[in-house]
Amino acid sequence: MEEVKNQQVVLKDYVNGFPKESDMLLNDSATINLKLPEGSNAVVVKNLYLSCDPYMRDRMSKSQGSYVESYTPGSVALTHCQIFQSVMNEYLIQHSNLPEDMDPIAGLGVAKVLDSGHSNLKKCDLVWGGTGWEEYSIINAPDTLFKIEHTDVPLSYYTGILGMPGMTAYAGFYEICAPKKGEYVFVSAAAGAVGQLVGQFAKLSGCYVVGSAGTKEKVDLLKNKFGFDEAFNYKEEQDLDATLKRYFPDGIDIYFENVGGKMLEAVLPNMRLKGRISACGMISQYNLEQGGGVRNLFHIITKSVRMQGFIVTHYFHMFPKYMDMIMPLIKQEKICYVEDLAEGLASAPAALVGLFSGRNVGKQVVVVARE
Amino acid sequence: MEEVKNQQVVLKDYVNGFPKESDMLLNDSATINLKLPEGSNAVVVKNLYLSCDPYMRDRMSKSQGSYVESYTPGSVALTHCQIFQSVMNEYLIQHSNLPEDMDPIAGLGVAKVLDSGHSNLKKCDLVWGGTGWEEYSIINAPDTLFKIEHTDVPLSYYTGILGMPGMTAYAGFYEICAPKKGEYVFVSAAAGAVGQLVGQFAKLSGCYVVGSAGTKEKVDLLKNKFGFDEAFNYKEEQDLDATLKRYFPDGIDIYFENVGGKMLEAVLPNMRLKGRISACGMISQYNLEQGGGVRNLFHIITKSVRMQGFIVTHYFHMFPKYMDMIMPLIKQEKICYVEDLAEGLASAPAALVGLFSGRNVGKQVVVVARE
Repeated sequence: MEEVKNQQVVLKDYVNGFPKESDMLLNDSATINLKLPEGSNAVVVKNLYLSCDPYMRDRMSKSQGSYVESYTPGSVALTHCQIFQSVMNEYLIQHSNLPEDMDPIAGLGVAKVLDSGHSNLKKCDLVWGGTGWEEYSIINAPDTLFKIEHTDVPLSYYTGILGMPGMTAYAGFYEICAPKKGEYVFVSAAAGAVGQLVGQFAKLSGCYVVGSAGTKEKVDLLKNKFGFDEAFNYKEEQDLDATLKRYFPDGIDIYFENVGGKMLEAVLPNMRLKGRISACGMISQYNLEQGGGVRNLFHIITKSVRMQGFIVTHYFHMFPKYMDMIMPLIKQEKICYVEDLAEGLASAPAALVGLFSGRNVGKQVVVVARE
Repeated sequence: MEEVKNQQVVLKDYVNGFPKESDMLLNDSATINLKLPEGSNAVVVKNLYLSCDPYMRDRMSKSQGSYVESYTPGSVALTHCQIFQSVMNEYLIQHSNLPEDMDPIAGLGVAKVLDSGHSNLKKCDLVWGGTGWEEYSIINAPDTLFKIEHTDVPLSYYTGILGMPGMTAYAGFYEICAPKKGEYVFVSAAAGAVGQLVGQFAKLSGCYVVGSAGTKEKVDLLKNKFGFDEAFNYKEEQDLDATLKRYFPDGIDIYFENVGGKMLEAVLPNMRLKGRISACGMISQYNLEQGGGVRNLFHIITKSVRMQGFIVTHYFHMFPKYMDMIMPLIKQEKICYVEDLAEGLASAPAALVGLFSGRNVGKQVVVVARE
């Protein structure tokens, strides 16, 4: 009776190398019942904003013991999702009970509750958390959803500054790096969903901060909108080590690592004694069969560097504390956030693929519906 | 009047690649006055035991901003030693006031005071700390020497278990790795000056510990003398990743890193969530023009690994605490220590060079004189 069409984005097959739009397809033949069966504990949501995140690349490969479970390409059903050992999955793996043979890509998003069998969620509530790349989703583990309390900010912010990337910047910078006033901070992929926040947090902490990005437009944003002290386009630099020596003649205390590979290799000799590297992502490596080797790790010893990887879900208990910090900063316009909005579910494959060529400027979001 | 001959080991020129015995020479023409001039604050010592340590390789290269100052090859005088930024140097750079144009190699050692202008040291006191590779040395900064209080243990132990390598194992394992009972520990270069202690500390902490070494003799030592649960000869393994999976089917919580390169690359995918890597040394890399690349650092993120480099001198304030722990363990024979003693100053070049081919079994010491 409440059966409606439900367009979906489906992964066609496991991806090798750089993902392409054609690795995904739009499935227009699926339908969904927007009314839950009697006694269900699930919720039905209408997806509003979907988040494009670099970690999703890892799920497009056949799993080799990664921290996130591989997606199941459309040709294979995965109706009963095995809960993996990884904490990430507790938050990210949400599969709708589709009657079809295809599952949409799973990711984070902002959604509106249409029907609820869960005591804490009711119709018209707004939530963010793990959902499907489709118009409507059935969320079988609604406890993993965050209820949205503040709606006087753009709702899409819950895919970014008020969501997982915001928490990533907060935990990765404050908790992992323990910044001190006057320290020298370098952020790679600095115009991205996380990097733009790390740079602004660094300035709020009284640090000197330099960011790298891959276009002139992004470099301008870093300097003129986000308040980085300096910024450079890494694609225009012949010798990244020399570049960093130019911007950090006294060395780097904190490196917020988003890219890996050659950039990390250039950073290591420039680290200061007791420097900290927050290893958040290594996007330069995700599409390589074999990552580029980092040949100078010995500097970790000689500079007493702490390099710490982290998974943001381990810090999700700190969300209330983060919200208390970030909401006033947003409202007082002491922090800003740039998003790159792709309109319509049909634009989702290109939006996701664009992350890996750096096409997005700021946080990449797909707008499925505005309410 | 007290002028005597003073044989020295001198570095002939900066070293590229693997050091050779012929990179050093024995200088038999130097003399030294064993009586200090009136008013001097220095001390004159007779060197008893000299310590061969892997970090010394770094000092044999022309300095490229390392954490230790380069040696000055014999052809260049360095009578006034510049104090470098590095903390290491405060302890290690001790140059004797030679009238000649040559300085001996500097290192750590155990020595007996022959004459003292320092209020806390008197004739016949035993000390350990930075000294020269020669029969007698004048120590211009005697505050950096540690006075030896316990003489009911082999004096050579102050180059190893009771000296810098002991403190390295203690700080690197307990302070950096924060071991918990039942955790899985892997130690590379496990039969060396530091590794043999880390393995025994791990057992004392209730951990499961596996060590790697480069000969059958060392592997036997690890299992039969130091009490490692398992040990393997890395030179006989075709696929180190598979080897580690065999010994650690549930993964590695703590990796005590002494070698770097391919071993680190094999360890990373085998790390457990929230694992810790104590980056103590990377001896496999020291003689390479360009270190071998580590291509899978992404595991640091996916496993939330903390990789922490350290310089032992930052922990020297903990020496009294370490002595309180280690002395009873030695006396109760709950811990043992294997040394490789090379007899005579003339054997020093071969002993030092041997570290880099793994010729030594246990801590490599040069016996200059027994008292």
